[in-house]
Amino acid sequence: MEMADNYFLSRRSCRNFSNKSIEREKLESIIYQAVKAPTTGNMQLYSVIITRNQDKLKRLSSLHYNQPAAKSAPVILTICADFNRFTKWCEINHAEPGFDNFHSFLTALTDAVILAQQIVTIAEKEGLGSCYLGTVTYNAKEISEFLQLPDLVVPVASLAIGQAEEEGEPTDRLPINAIIHEEGYRIDSDEEIINVFKVHDNNPDNQKFIRVNNKENLAQVFAQVRYPAKQNKELSKAFLKLLREKGFIF
Amino acid sequence: MEMADNYFLSRRSCRNFSNKSIEREKLESIIYQAVKAPTTGNMQLYSVIITRNQDKLKRLSSLHYNQPAAKSAPVILTICADFNRFTKWCEINHAEPGFDNFHSFLTALTDAVILAQQIVTIAEKEGLGSCYLGTVTYNAKEISEFLQLPDLVVPVASLAIGQAEEEGEPTDRLPINAIIHEEGYRIDSDEEIINVFKVHDNNPDNQKFIRVNNKENLAQVFAQVRYPAKQNKELSKAFLKLLREKGFIF
Repeated sequence: MEMADNYFLSRRSCRNFSNKSIEREKLESIIYQAVKAPTTGNMQLYSVIITRNQDKLKRLSSLHYNQPAAKSAPVILTICADFNRFTKWCEINHAEPGFDNFHSFLTALTDAVILAQQIVTIAEKEGLGSCYLGTVTYNAKEISEFLQLPDLVVPVASLAIGQAEEEGEPTDRLPINAIIHEEGYRIDSDEEIINVFKVHDNNPDNQKFIRVNNKENLAQVFAQVRYPAKQNKELSKAFLKLLREKGFIF
Repeated sequence: MEMADNYFLSRRSCRNFSNKSIEREKLESIIYQAVKAPTTGNMQLYSVIITRNQDKLKRLSSLHYNQPAAKSAPVILTICADFNRFTKWCEINHAEPGFDNFHSFLTALTDAVILAQQIVTIAEKEGLGSCYLGTVTYNAKEISEFLQLPDLVVPVASLAIGQAEEEGEPTDRLPINAIIHEEGYRIDSDEEIINVFKVHDNNPDNQKFIRVNNKENLAQVFAQVRYPAKQNKELSKAFLKLLREKGFIF
């Protein structure tokens, strides 16, 4: 199997974009190719909102905490789980749609994330850089209002896209044996878990994060600084509230 | 831009596999490449369970209603949202993990679906066929038991993978303008919605489904036969119950 110069192995996300814009036609072409990705029952339960107007980008970037990828990108795509269009089509056809529930949200969310990843791959293959803005679920309500999302439409994946300003190195990943399980889930021992995460514990950048945040180890940086329990709980509450407001009642 | 012989445009899912097996090394190589896909904070909140043992495949296929893709595939990958491994690492490091909530599930689910789609792309690029088994969320509890999934691990994407038995044609998609919104969500009129879905209404296979199911139109096949409200509500209840049982409490 071809492994040298392999795009999939050498790809990495881009967090600093040049100010070069992307032509509207190029964006459309990428999305046009990406919608051939798998989708549940060919329902295409997603929409893509393109933000490229300078003023709107500024506001949307602020809803993503002005992280460098959001701030420097000439385009942000907000990919939404969307049962609105399909429900309307059913209503027009007197078909009694019943997609106002959690399972339907889960289905649309999956369609939307598959599309997002297909967009990433196609954009990167065409020489662009991209970065998911995980903060889309942090300010989902505010982003929904800003993009005027109607019922049964919820933002689930945001992509900053543009020309990469600098080329980085691929990020280290856990040993593949930690990810793969044969025929059933294998419970790893504490020792195995410790071994598996050494690749991150020993990384010089991560060592710096530990010192800067005055923590004992990298796990504490993750669990106490980056993704603390209290914040996760608050975000859970807010996102569930948005799902109910948007009609994915449960 | 290159459009002829474009993999992304011409790809389609495979629902009939030959009985040719896939080497363990090939599977590992695909997953090894795929984990370079983006992941939240480099946490890799997923696991991949490989099922290739004949007896186990038979049982797993039955949990997917023995649909042709599941029944004929030499391999099924069950991709799980997994906060178990990361939580254990935090516990070992006295880092007070707080990932037992809905937001953390949403984060792990997104990581898992991104990985699934990257596996699809790499497998297809290497000449294999693949098909998502959407039924993974229908029998998620039974699949979890079968695969012995522990706390904070939930199956969210299943992939049948193998050598395609027959090559199909790419499926029609909605006009791209229905998917793309500029700077904010555009509310389409009923007439526009009707126009957009004509590509499916007019499809001869879909016309057949309408007749076979004794319905007036395609929307009724979707909303009353394939994805009826009552079933969606029951699936919602069951999946939410599983999330609570697995510790993604909310």
